[in-house]
Amino acid sequence: MASELIQKLLSGDARSVARAISVVEQGGAAAAELMRAVFPHTGNATVVGITGAPGAGKSSLVDKLALFYKEKGEKVGIVCIDPSSPFSGGAILGDRIRMSTLGLDKNIFIRSMATRGNLGGLSRATVDAVAILDAAGYNKVIVETVGVGQDEVEIVKTADVSVVVLVPGMGDDIQAIKAGIMEIGDVFVINKADREGVLRTQKELEALLSLAHRPDMWHPPIVPTVATENKGLEDLAAAIEKYVGYTAMAYGEEIADRKASIAKWRLLELLRERLLNELLNRNGTEKNLERLAADVAAKRIDPYSAIEEILSEPRT
Amino acid sequence: MASELIQKLLSGDARSVARAISVVEQGGAAAAELMRAVFPHTGNATVVGITGAPGAGKSSLVDKLALFYKEKGEKVGIVCIDPSSPFSGGAILGDRIRMSTLGLDKNIFIRSMATRGNLGGLSRATVDAVAILDAAGYNKVIVETVGVGQDEVEIVKTADVSVVVLVPGMGDDIQAIKAGIMEIGDVFVINKADREGVLRTQKELEALLSLAHRPDMWHPPIVPTVATENKGLEDLAAAIEKYVGYTAMAYGEEIADRKASIAKWRLLELLRERLLNELLNRNGTEKNLERLAADVAAKRIDPYSAIEEILSEPRT
Repeated sequence: MASELIQKLLSGDARSVARAISVVEQGGAAAAELMRAVFPHTGNATVVGITGAPGAGKSSLVDKLALFYKEKGEKVGIVCIDPSSPFSGGAILGDRIRMSTLGLDKNIFIRSMATRGNLGGLSRATVDAVAILDAAGYNKVIVETVGVGQDEVEIVKTADVSVVVLVPGMGDDIQAIKAGIMEIGDVFVINKADREGVLRTQKELEALLSLAHRPDMWHPPIVPTVATENKGLEDLAAAIEKYVGYTAMAYGEEIADRKASIAKWRLLELLRERLLNELLNRNGTEKNLERLAADVAAKRIDPYSAIEEILSEPRT
Repeated sequence: MASELIQKLLSGDARSVARAISVVEQGGAAAAELMRAVFPHTGNATVVGITGAPGAGKSSLVDKLALFYKEKGEKVGIVCIDPSSPFSGGAILGDRIRMSTLGLDKNIFIRSMATRGNLGGLSRATVDAVAILDAAGYNKVIVETVGVGQDEVEIVKTADVSVVVLVPGMGDDIQAIKAGIMEIGDVFVINKADREGVLRTQKELEALLSLAHRPDMWHPPIVPTVATENKGLEDLAAAIEKYVGYTAMAYGEEIADRKASIAKWRLLELLRERLLNELLNRNGTEKNLERLAADVAAKRIDPYSAIEEILSEPRT
């Protein structure tokens, strides 16, 4: 059954792609088997990471960029990452609207990844979903993350090119120019560039970027866009192509280092998930965990002593 | 030595608090020992989580709220969480400026937590830092997170009350109204309320909140502020107090459930970190990891097979 799924997804069948992504979301042995088969077929897609604050218009930009690529005859996969929603489990009105619009197009595949409970694994599942789309023959895979959390930054770093989306006026606030989000951008977009304050934001951004020391010596371009009016998309696509070409040509050693450090991060993520699952699958651990969590909440035991108790159970 | 540090931090000595936080940032056995001693002395502070998008003016709001509490005679601890900065390791201009201003006040302690490499543990270290400040006699501990990433959401959930900061005009964009960030707010702030669009943002927010089903039946208030001009802080402090009082009075069972689920998340975080460190401290694992990361980057092996190789080493 697994081999039939793999066959079909390699031939580009969208329903098999969707099913395969559900398998990696679940994790476990089935995900591992699937990904081992998928891995040799990856490496052809250009993976574009797009990040930025809520309200910057990332979704519109991603949708319009996807349509732009599609009109050039390319197949486009989109993976959106949600922050976990503690109450509803991450159902999102906006993404549903998008999926029902874009989802009608057979050359565009869109999938929203949400966290499943508190066992983590979202980063790992996202990177696996990108690999699946890559193996299924999507030429461009866009990974869209909301916010600038630690995991999101890591995920964006696994892309071939990272795009950071800003809006005019954000430079008002010193918080907005945190080093973290600035330093991951290979290309910057000032979206909603029909609003006032574009020039000021651009100047502030240029000043900030001039302070950064990139190991690859690349000077990130700043592209103004108005995604909702389809303005600036051609420039954005050109800037993305240019960076991808640059990394392919020059600084082979830096790129190899970057790829190795991404691979290391992936291995650590996989190990973390695998080790925790191994522990939780042991007889009694889950019950112990529930009991000790209640004890910690009631301050009958401290968390560090509680995990010692879990770990001291004989490992059968 | 450890017991002297603990003695001093329990007496409220700020330098010992700073050193203790450095210990928990490093993790390992020293952190565990310290936290076991600290744990019985926690539970007195009110922990206020403040989150929101970059550019919303969170830092100003946190600073002004801290000063407000201080003027009421309280000691205030502030823990800021940075997204990792892959190049610089997270040095942040803004926080340095803040720390040199607020840091002069002996009743305010401010500390910025950054990720150390890619071994994770930031969430765990942050929660530990909050416990240290609590044990050291800080009456209010404010946890400020940038962005809305998965870890950030989890961290904010560990607070006694969560404040979500918005700015006028964010409602323009469906991205801004993601369920995740809406559902974690016990109190909402519309900062920069001297800008136009406040009423519209407030209406949209009210409409969204009316759709949410909170297990604790609380109706989150919406507080307009202009932090830079000290406007609305008294209302914000009152809203925070009101929610804290509400949770103390009513719905004991829901609160116990919430505390147990937070404790479970903490235990899982600790286990994840502990299991990975145990593995990495084994002879040869680190070297294997580097070699396999290079192999994965060069596509000589897939990541899932690579971790099998690491895990199959004899566990001595």
